[in-house]
Parts: sequence; C-alpha cells; structure tokens
Amino acid sequence: MRYLTAGESHGSQLTLIVEGLPSRLPFSREAVDQQLARRQKGYGRGRRMQIESDRVQVLSGIRFGETTGAPVALAIENKDWVKWKDVMSPDSEGEKTEKRRVSRPRPGHADLNGAIKYGHRDMRDVLERSSARETAARVTAGAVARQVLQLCGIRVASHVVRIGTVGTERLDPARWTAEEIAERSEASPVRCLDPEAEQAMIRLIDEAKQEGDSLGGVVEVIVENVPVGLGSHVHWDRKLDARITQAIVSINAFKGAEIGIGFEAAERKGSQVHDEILWSEEKGYHRATNRLGGFEGGMTTGEPIVVRGVMKPIPTLYKPLNSVDIDTKEPFQASIERSDNCAVPAAGVVAENVVAWEVARALLEKFSSDTAEELHRCVEQYRKQVKEF
Amino acid sequence: MRYLTAGESHGSQLTLIVEGLPSRLPFSREAVDQQLARRQKGYGRGRRMQIESDRVQVLSGIRFGETTGAPVALAIENKDWVKWKDVMSPDSEGEKTEKRRVSRPRPGHADLNGAIKYGHRDMRDVLERSSARETAARVTAGAVARQVLQLCGIRVASHVVRIGTVGTERLDPARWTAEEIAERSEASPVRCLDPEAEQAMIRLIDEAKQEGDSLGGVVEVIVENVPVGLGSHVHWDRKLDARITQAIVSINAFKGAEIGIGFEAAERKGSQVHDEILWSEEKGYHRATNRLGGFEGGMTTGEPIVVRGVMKPIPTLYKPLNSVDIDTKEPFQASIERSDNCAVPAAGVVAENVVAWEVARALLEKFSSDTAEELHRCVEQYRKQVKEF
Amino acid sequence: MRYLTAGESHGSQLTLIVEGLPSRLPFSREAVDQQLARRQKGYGRGRRMQIESDRVQVLSGIRFGETTGAPVALAIENKDWVKWKDVMSPDSEGEKTEKRRVSRPRPGHADLNGAIKYGHRDMRDVLERSSARETAARVTAGAVARQVLQLCGIRVASHVVRIGTVGTERLDPARWTAEEIAERSEASPVRCLDPEAEQAMIRLIDEAKQEGDSLGGVVEVIVENVPVGLGSHVHWDRKLDARITQAIVSINAFKGAEIGIGFEAAERKGSQVHDEILWSEEKGYHRATNRLGGFEGGMTTGEPIVVRGVMKPIPTLYKPLNSVDIDTKEPFQASIERSDNCAVPAAGVVAENVVAWEVARALLEKFSSDTAEELHRCVEQYRKQVKEF
Amino acid sequence: MRYLTAGESHGSQLTLIVEGLPSRLPFSREAVDQQLARRQKGYGRGRRMQIESDRVQVLSGIRFGETTGAPVALAIENKDWVKWKDVMSPDSEGEKTEKRRVSRPRPGHADLNGAIKYGHRDMRDVLERSSARETAARVTAGAVARQVLQLCGIRVASHVVRIGTVGTERLDPARWTAEEIAERSEASPVRCLDPEAEQAMIRLIDEAKQEGDSLGGVVEVIVENVPVGLGSHVHWDRKLDARITQAIVSINAFKGAEIGIGFEAAERKGSQVHDEILWSEEKGYHRATNRLGGFEGGMTTGEPIVVRGVMKPIPTLYKPLNSVDIDTKEPFQASIERSDNCAVPAAGVVAENVVAWEVARALLEKFSSDTAEELHRCVEQYRKQVKEF
Repeated sequence: MRYLTAGESHGSQLTLIVEGLPSRLPFSREAVDQQLARRQKGYGRGRRMQIESDRVQVLSGIRFGETTGAPVALAIENKDWVKWKDVMSPDSEGEKTEKRRVSRPRPGHADLNGAIKYGHRDMRDVLERSSARETAARVTAGAVARQVLQLCGIRVASHVVRIGTVGTERLDPARWTAEEIAERSEASPVRCLDPEAEQAMIRLIDEAKQEGDSLGGVVEVIVENVPVGLGSHVHWDRKLDARITQAIVSINAFKGAEIGIGFEAAERKGSQVHDEILWSEEKGYHRATNRLGGFEGGMTTGEPIVVRGVMKPIPTLYKPLNSVDIDTKEPFQASIERSDNCAVPAAGVVAENVVAWEVARALLEKFSSDTAEELHRCVEQYRKQVKEF
Repeated sequence: MRYLTAGESHGSQLTLIVEGLPSRLPFSREAVDQQLARRQKGYGRGRRMQIESDRVQVLSGIRFGETTGAPVALAIENKDWVKWKDVMSPDSEGEKTEKRRVSRPRPGHADLNGAIKYGHRDMRDVLERSSARETAARVTAGAVARQVLQLCGIRVASHVVRIGTVGTERLDPARWTAEEIAERSEASPVRCLDPEAEQAMIRLIDEAKQEGDSLGGVVEVIVENVPVGLGSHVHWDRKLDARITQAIVSINAFKGAEIGIGFEAAERKGSQVHDEILWSEEKGYHRATNRLGGFEGGMTTGEPIVVRGVMKPIPTLYKPLNSVDIDTKEPFQASIERSDNCAVPAAGVVAENVVAWEVARALLEKFSSDTAEELHRCVEQYRKQVKEF
Repeated sequence: MRYLTAGESHGSQLTLIVEGLPSRLPFSREAVDQQLARRQKGYGRGRRMQIESDRVQVLSGIRFGETTGAPVALAIENKDWVKWKDVMSPDSEGEKTEKRRVSRPRPGHADLNGAIKYGHRDMRDVLERSSARETAARVTAGAVARQVLQLCGIRVASHVVRIGTVGTERLDPARWTAEEIAERSEASPVRCLDPEAEQAMIRLIDEAKQEGDSLGGVVEVIVENVPVGLGSHVHWDRKLDARITQAIVSINAFKGAEIGIGFEAAERKGSQVHDEILWSEEKGYHRATNRLGGFEGGMTTGEPIVVRGVMKPIPTLYKPLNSVDIDTKEPFQASIERSDNCAVPAAGVVAENVVAWEVARALLEKFSSDTAEELHRCVEQYRKQVKEF
Repeated sequence: MRYLTAGESHGSQLTLIVEGLPSRLPFSREAVDQQLARRQKGYGRGRRMQIESDRVQVLSGIRFGETTGAPVALAIENKDWVKWKDVMSPDSEGEKTEKRRVSRPRPGHADLNGAIKYGHRDMRDVLERSSARETAARVTAGAVARQVLQLCGIRVASHVVRIGTVGTERLDPARWTAEEIAERSEASPVRCLDPEAEQAMIRLIDEAKQEGDSLGGVVEVIVENVPVGLGSHVHWDRKLDARITQAIVSINAFKGAEIGIGFEAAERKGSQVHDEILWSEEKGYHRATNRLGGFEGGMTTGEPIVVRGVMKPIPTLYKPLNSVDIDTKEPFQASIERSDNCAVPAAGVVAENVVAWEVARALLEKFSSDTAEELHRCVEQYRKQVKEF
C-alpha cells in the first residue's frame, strides 16, 4: 500500500492516490469527511479553519460503496481558491506581477531553505506546498487506512497530553479503552482527557493569544487490538515502531516522537522499564504493564501501541521574529499569514491518522490481502494461532 | 544508496552489502575499524565487548583503496563462532538437541513476539538476529557513508547527554565544534562532555551494577557543515528529519528521537522556539540560535543537525523479570545472557553512524554522484550558489 | 521521480500524480494535450476515439508555466462519464441492479483472472481499470517527462514497423534523425515511414475489418542525443534497457520487447552483432553501427536508443471467441465492447511516452536535478567531460 | 523479498543477501549447488567453466536446514582468486602497476560507457563487475526462490529453442510437463528438446568455433502450476509479465524477451492469438491453448508461464572487432579474454532462475508468508477458492 499526495494551500484542490488497497472493502465517504472535520477543530484555531469545511470527493477506485482493488483517487477542494486563481495560476500567461510575491522568509518555515534548494525567488512557490494544509491529504489517507483497520477490529484514538507548560498524568491503560479515549477527547475543545488540565490549557491558549504568542504540545496516539508481530526485527527498515516515528515526525511542525514511556525510559532503571510476561488460559500471553508502548524488537507485542509526538508552537506569530528579505538582504520582522495560535488538538488528529496508515500498511504486508474477506480471514486464523502458541 | 545486512549474534559473520556508492571514493578500512572499535567501548560494558575486537573484511567493490562504483560487500567475523558452530549450524544434520534451545522469552526483547510471528518454538531463532550485535553492521554502513561525508567536508559527532537520572545542560553550539565534541567525548569513558556529569554517571552505573539493575540514557548526534536543502518539503517521505528519526528508533533498544530542542519545544512559547534569520556578507544566511536542530520543513537549514535518541535500559538483568515458559506455560524469572548494564556510550556511536548514513544518502540523492569527483564538484558549486542566493 | 495513476475507463476522470520533478522546468499543457491527441489517432480506431478529445487539467505543482518542485497532479476528464454515472457510482446507494453487470469474461483480457484475484462477481470491477484507457495517464506522465528531456536536448520518436503480415525494412539510422522520423510517422495514418508498407498496412486493416478480425503489430521507439552512461551495470535492477523493457511490456496488450536488433541477434554470428568503437576529434567515441540499440552493459552508449515492442491484436472481435459465463458456467461467445480493430499506431505513441519516462527518470537519478537549471548545467558539463574522456 | 549481490569476476567471492524469506522453509544447499552446476555446463563453454565448480557457502539466516526469517547471506568463492589477489587488491598499497590494466574497451561490453560514467581509466574497474560471473549470484537467488516455489508445488524448467540459424518448433504444451522438459533438456549438451535440432546446433557451434566466431540464441522458460492472479492489472509496475521481462533483459547479453507467442502475435490475426476460456467440473476454468503464455492483464491465468529471452552472441571473439585505445585514441583489434563461443545453454539456466525469483516474489506479495506453513496453507485455501469461483 502506497500513496502520493499533491496540492497547494491555495491551489484548486488537494489530490490523493492510494494504491494497494484490498478489494471489496466497505468504503465510507462520511468516515473520511468525519476525520477531515476533526482535523479542522480545536481550541486555538483561527478563522480559516472555521470557514473551510473539507469534504472528500471520490474520483476512482470505489464502486457501489466498496473498493475494487484499483487505485483510489480522492480530492479535497479548496473553498477559497476562487480568490487565489490568478495568484496560483498554472498558466504562463498568468499574473506575474509582484502581487502576493513573497521575498520574506518566515523563521520556522520551509520558506528560505526551500527557496534556496528549488531556486525560487518567490517563496510562495515553497510555502504553498510546505503549508500544513497538506495534512488534510494525509488525514484522508489515514481515514482510508482506518477502514482496513476497522475490518480487523483495530481501533485508533488520540488525546492531547501537553499544551505549553500544562501536562497530564500518564494514562492508566487498564482503565481506558480506545473507544473511551476517542469519546472523551472528542468532547474536549483541546482534546484532553483530564478536565482540570483541559481548563488550564484553555487558559494558557487565551493568555498566549493575548501576548501574540503561540503554543505547542504533545499528543498521544493509541492503537488497540493490534495483532502480535506487525513489523519485523529481521531488518532495520522493517521495524514498525521506527516507521511510525518517521510518519509522526514528518507531520508539519513535529520535532520528535517516542514509543511508550519513551524519553522517560532513560531516567528509570531497567527493572522499572520492561514489561513482565504473563500467560493465562483466557488471555494467552499478555503483560501487566505496557511501558514499551506495544513494541519489542520493532514488532507489535499485542499490547496497545502507544506513541507520542511533539509539535512545536506555530511559527507564525503576532509577536514577530526577525528575518531577512532575500531581495534587499535587509532585516524585517516576519509577517503573519494566519491567526491560529495553537494547533495541537488538530495535530493530534493528524498524528492518529498517519499512525493508522502505518499500522494498516504493516497489516497488508503481513497478511494475504487482495480482498477484504481474505485479509479478515487470515487475521482471524492468525489470532487463533497466537492464542494457541 | 541502499544496503542490506545479514548475520546472527553467534553466527560465523555479519555481512553487509552497500549499493550505490560513487566510484573513486577513497576508502579506508581503518576508518571502518575505528568506528567498530568505538562501538565496543564505554563504561558499563561486559566482558564480551572487551574480548571481541571487530575488524572489517573487504570482499568486493573496492580496488586499490577506492570504490569502483560496484556494490561493496563487507564482513565482520564473529570471533567466538567456533564455540557456537554446532548450535548455529546451517545443516539439517546439525545438532537438534535441546542444548541451547530457548523456550523462555526475555521481557523487553523480541523473543516472544518474534517467535509467534515466525513460528519458532526455539527462540534462539529470533534472538540471534534481534541481538544488538547487528548494530556492528549498521555502524559499518555508517562508516562507509562517513567517507562520502568527509569528501564534502561534513562532520559527524555525538555525545551522551543523559544516563539514568544524570543529565547534562544543553550544549551551546557556538562554543563547540563537531571536532571538539568528538575529541572530548572520545576521551570520556561515558562519552560525556561535562566532567562533573561524567563522574556522576560512572557512579550511577556502578551502583546499578551492584543492585543488579541496568541503565538507559540519551545520546545527541551533531552533523556539521551540511549543505542547505537536503531532504525535501514536497512529499512527507522525503523529509530528512523524519528519515533520521526512523533510523534512530530502529536501533535496538531505542524508544524515541527528537530534533533540536525536541520535546522541550512543547513547553516553550513560539517566540522562544524558532530561530531568527540573519544575513551577512561573510556568512550568507544563518541563524543566531539552532533550536530547530538544523531542520525547517524537513530540509536542512545549513545549521548543524542536532538529533537525540533515547535508549532504554538493557533488558537483561541480574535482577530478573517475570516471564512464562512457552512450553510449560509456567512462570519463571528471565535469564541473563550478558553482563553489560549500561550500553548508552556505545549506542551513541551507533546513532552517529546511522545518522551519517541518512545524511550521505540524502546528499547522493541531491547531487550528481556517479563519481566522487562529480559529487565534490556539484556540492562545491551549490555551496557557492547558496552563498549568493 | 515516481508516479501513480488512478481512474477507470468510464469513471469521471483519470488522475495522475508525478512526484520528483525538477523545479522551474517550463511546463506546457499544450505539449501534453498534443501527446494525448496523438494517442487517439491512427487508422483502425473505432468511433470512441474520434468522439473523445482528451485534454489535461493541471491541478497542482505548476505555477505560471513552470514546475515548482511540488508534486504535479493532472486530470483527464472522461467526456462520456455522464452516461455512466449510475453504473460507476461510488455510492453504496448506487444502482446495484444487473444492468451493465458483466459475468462473461472476454478471452485476452484481465476479466477472468482479475475477477478471481479480487473476488468480483461483476467483472466490470476489473475491466474498467484494466482497460487501455489507462494508457492516457501514462502518456501524460511521458509527456511531462519529455519536457525534462527537451531541456537536455534529448528527442523521442516512434514509428510502426509491422502490422500483421506487413513489415518494413530496418531503418538506416544514419539516414533518419528523430525529428524526421517524428515528422514522417505523424503524417502517416498508420505511423509508418515506408509509403509502400503504409498502403499495404491500410489494406490489411480494411480486410481484417471486413472479416471481423483484428491486427497487432510492432512499434519502434528511438531516443536521440542521450548522454552516455544512463542506467548502470553494477546491479541488475539499475540496467536501463531492462527497465525500458518492463515499461513497454506493461502497456496493455504488449507481449514482448527487444533492444536494437533484438531477437535477430540470435540468428547472426557475433561478428555481425557488435558495434565497433571509433573515435574522432569531432565526435569523440562513437559507433559505425547501432545493432545493440544504444545499450551496452545496461547503460546507454550515446548512440540512439532503439527499442521495439510487440502488440497483440485487440482481443475484442466481431468474430467472437468462446468463453464461459461465471454465473452459469455455460459457454458463450465473447461480446464486443468496441470497434477498433487495430490500435498499433496509437500504441506506438504510448510506447514512446513510457520510454520517455524511463529515460527521464534515469537522467534525474544520474544528475543533480532539484532545479531545471542545475540539471541542464550538470548534463552539459558531463557531455563535455565525455567528449574529453 | 529483495536481494543485493556483490562481487567481481576475479575477486575473492560473490556475495548475496536475500531478505524477506518466510521462516521455517526447508533449505537445501545441495539444491543451490545443483543450479550453480547447471549454470556452468553446456556445449560451447570454454575451459574456465570446466575448472570452476561453484559451491555456495551459507553465512547466515539458515539454521538446522531451515530459514529462520532472518536475511540469508550466501557466498560463492572464486577458485582462481589467489592468482588475482594483487591485481584485485582492495588495499591502496596494492599493485598500481600497469599490469592487467585495461585501456582497450571491447565492443559489446560495458567497458567504454562504464568507464566514462564511473571515471575509470583502468577499465578493469568496470569489466570485473559487468562480467557474466555475476549471474552466479542471481542463479543462487533464484535457487533460493525455487525452494519457496517447491513448497507450493510450482515447477520451473527451461530449454533452448534457437542457437544461431537453428531453431525448433514451438512446443505443444499439452505434450510436455515441466518435469519432462527439465529432464530432457538436462540430458542435452545444448539443452534442446529436439534431437535433430540438437545435432544441428552442435555442428553450428563447432563451425563457428573454427571460424573464430560466436553464437547467440533464444531460451524458453516454463513455470507450471502457478496460481491464478499473481501480479496485478491495477498499476503498471505490478504487472508480473513486465517484471519478468525486466528480469530477463537484465541478464548479461540478453537483448529482448517475449511472453507466450510474443513477436509472432504481431503477424497473426486476433482470432489466432487469444486463448478461449473453458470450464469443467474437474479442472475449473482453463484454456485449450496458451498463446498468451500464462498472462492476461499482467496477471497469471493459471496456465503455464511461457517466456522467451534472446541472448546475443558472446562479444569476445577470436575474430576480433575494431575498437579504440582510450589512452592513445589509436584503433586496435579487441582482445580475447575467454574461450567460450556459445553460452546459450547456460544462459537458459540463468533465465530460469531469474524468472523463479520474480514468481516467488509475486507469490510472497500475494499471500501471508511470515512462515512457510502459513504460505502453504494460504496458497492451498486460495487454490480451492479458485476452483469454486
């Protein structure tokens, strides 16, 4: 399973082609739209997010509500493209005026290094693609992948565990199912499970807004009911935890990722890190704890996957940062293009969906999957085998 | 540039094939051996590391001290293989007795999930490959990649920033060059730049050893003099920071990675995270700070790459963990196979080398590189262009 | 450089995403449309081809007539989709009636094995994607690749060398430039350079039509002014001739491909096969003959690339073939869905464009190519070097 | 499943790493040696082939006669390396004298274009890798793949259908099983099934030898009992016939490949090309003819795969070809490095094994295959399903 995305922030549409899905997989457009809607919410977002309301359009690969096995092409139209038609025109007769030309790179964005790499004197040719708008396409890919996971009873959820200086306690996995996490986080404007922290986060966002500053945070993704043995220890590039980490850090503004207790593992002694192995007639092999976040040796253990990603604060601030105009080499103070000051809740949704993609991909690699039915049957047979091992 | 590794912990040898190197690149076997030696050192390692002294053997792709462009095959013999010949025999007539058969999975290792996935009742068939011994092959690949980097004046170094509860202050990048970091860390038994922290780390390792416990830590890799624009913002899987993260987390026992200030970015406000852009006749574009660790939009900024990885404590302890025998389903206390209790210093060397590989790979993707001379010329031309942008 | 295509024969559109193009490459939509138009012409085509007139729509990656380096998304609308809207509906509420349901596999098509593989009882779910309509997307990809080639002075042309029993003499490469081949073949209704053979081919097509039968043929693609050393001998999967062969045989209805004199080489003695090497001040290294079709050791020699592909006759005939209904297992005579009886001239255009893609891809792999300017400069420098070798 | 090979014609050894095999697959070293031995036989080979007798050495990934799932590293030592030790030394202190330096490119070899591409003035740095010696590594990979195929009852065979001007009649597939083809071709010095043609081929080889000339030919590979639906019509790069074609043409000296009746299809009418579809209680769906060589829409039909490849005559002749010394630019007559004058029988063995690899790879892509048992079970279940479709 593979995909390519295309599209600019103010272009006509985002386009996504997903190749390698099983055939006869029930496909719900509403389920994709729901993920797109989740991506646009969250306390701290600016006006644009509220205006837009992304809807996916199915261009190919789906017939009568099911995949056919052919590549699935999906599009998400940009609602305000009409206003940008001239500025973003593909035609060479298009407007070449200085209007909307960008010669002033914003710190913390791809503007300057992208312009140098690709030889652009108008940095709009970089920022239109490097924009987080692209994450709508990745959420769409993830939303498709979730329909594979759903078939196999695998559930994905996420929640916000830190915004700025406000963090939450580590979840007791025994107490929270993915469903409960999904439900509770969905109800929270900052997608936080802890009501007290939620309130503190909201206050922090309001304060930062008033200061013209922005906030980052940490999100946690949980994947439940994953079969044992996705990924592989035999070659480094097949380790699923590492692939998931790549997927997370490749989200715009993400600067790190960790599995299970992650960086905390460095501070604990070995006896406080590893998860003891138990067995019972009813559950088969299992663990009392899940500090390793569902992975050993780059493979899933059967315990929930737990992965965190850190998002830096949005770089576009009211409180501007110093930069240099590439035409004049004169310093200036970096301009504002949007008014969000905290995008962490939405970023959690993106994280959830990129993780869903990687897990589904590993699933299709492991099992016969030309048809949804084959995949389902093979997974069920394997689960039984695992139980009896 | 791509590679495959093969080999078991107690097999005859590790084998590595690197395909896609420029031709006529000076190749030093000594430089590889030096990286292998660095990987075997460090306070907290057990006897095995001191016995072994890995040497690389060149099997193909190198002639008269230079690459030819053909695939480079390298081998590292396992010194104590003779003792394991029967246990690890490829022949079906080989010893099939219970001797050395492993039915008891160690928590924190690939043993159990690997055995389930691959259908092994003798978990030796898993642990021999999942062993960190494999990192010697990856260090070798990195050591080859470094010869590409060296050609282009790119330098890689690393140091230990945390062992257990002892952490160090963040480096002032203005004060430390990669060369100084390399030199100072090399002189430290725990590869730590701060003499006080070094002493505290050593004490901690000794204490943990007495308790029969183990320690993890955090390592930091620095890559200096990287051209602007390695990686790309245009598609998620081309972002170099994310690829580096995958490479780090795929090292045995690593549970997370972060770029620049990483997880700390979540706690700071936006104005305290991004790096302001400056320009001067002499330096061209540059930054006063490097909190983003040399990356914006998945591309290098020209500032040093700074990446950290967290290693969990070694799971094999004198203080054993509960587990279950897969034959009897009876609980037991997990056995010890080796006597290291802290491998963080060595893991830093591995991290350094896997990062070197990813940077070199991105370099070869960006520039004409059939020959070392072409690569060098193209990089130099580009550096000039960057200066004049 | 990579691409994915999506789209069904009677779906709303074909979609193509091309990732990895250099930035600042002049992009002409007209040039793409021209290739699409060429694909729809040719003596022997049925009505559908004359009705449709494909036009490409640029969705992203192009601004003001140039690539930006971002993925390029392109669409080709299907003109008669309105009539098929219900039959091809993605919605589950869509028409599920038996109308247009296909239970009768056509010999020579993907219908039966595709249905078995993907579990479809309605073979429309196979044939819509396996249709040669998809080649419009591949022609589009090739038309984009040609703009890369054009920048470097590389020219691609093709002509038909056989239809049914009428074949032509092998071209004297010294007498025909790519431009002349392109011009002359364009002027011929069967894309044949030899006026006598042309007339015979037309007669043959007419005859076959009257018999209700179909014809295949052989096309030849020529690529001129290719730099020496695209592809590589060092690893089998980097050999460019073999990649080109894969590209050719993957075109619908193609059953084989050969480089240079190809299968004829089996019948000649060695002294009549290889191309002697010459050198002159003016031309540098060159060959008097080009029997090996521009390749030695999987790499280009600098002589024109000459590759042929064989297309089988269209399997859908007025003179029907026996098959079996998958519902009843009763034999029937395979139905007709279209009225072309010879698609060889059009297939030559497809072949030309898939070869263009592979050559451009090899070019971008060999040279620095983030920007068109860099690519152009590196190719020029290299050509000079080759001259001086 | 993927592999890399390394090694030079006169280097110490060929090395192969195969990654992605199922675990617990019975592995026979003898079966590999047998393929290697077959590759070295055949009328028309020179002395070197008779001296060498390749044996594979297992370095990792196999234990007690079974795969473990870990990468399999294999080596084939070069017997006469001792004589070449200095000439091929990896060490920079190695012999840099002019001895054995090659400044004279042989027409029909990679020598000249490889030297230009990789910047070598000593063309030994090209020819050592471009040598057909490398096919021993590819045969080894194929011999490993065959053990996967054997598990699933898939059989591979080949025979020579043309040497020079002597060709054979197309086989009647109804009369020959793969086993019979294998047996009969093995017994023939030119691997030809037709006794008369065999004698004529031998005479032709003898004649050519006396003239100091060389001969090429055409080989045919048959794969029997392949499940329906390997490969896929949904995206061009997943079409298995095209992948097989790439594999064939990437063999040294191969200039083309065709599926089923291949180029002959161009000369026949449609009604004489396609294979009518039948069904019977006993056999399920099947075809009376197999002109399309086991493929429709890039997928297997269940009929035997039939693929042919053309090998050009060996370029190194006693009857020398004109070329140019790269130092002096003076013409010379290309030298002889070996004494084979026809390698077609051996090349058939290589073709057989590269096809085996591609079929096995497609098999592992289609089915759950972490363990041999899973693969076997999934294939069996699927075969039953196909029967009942």
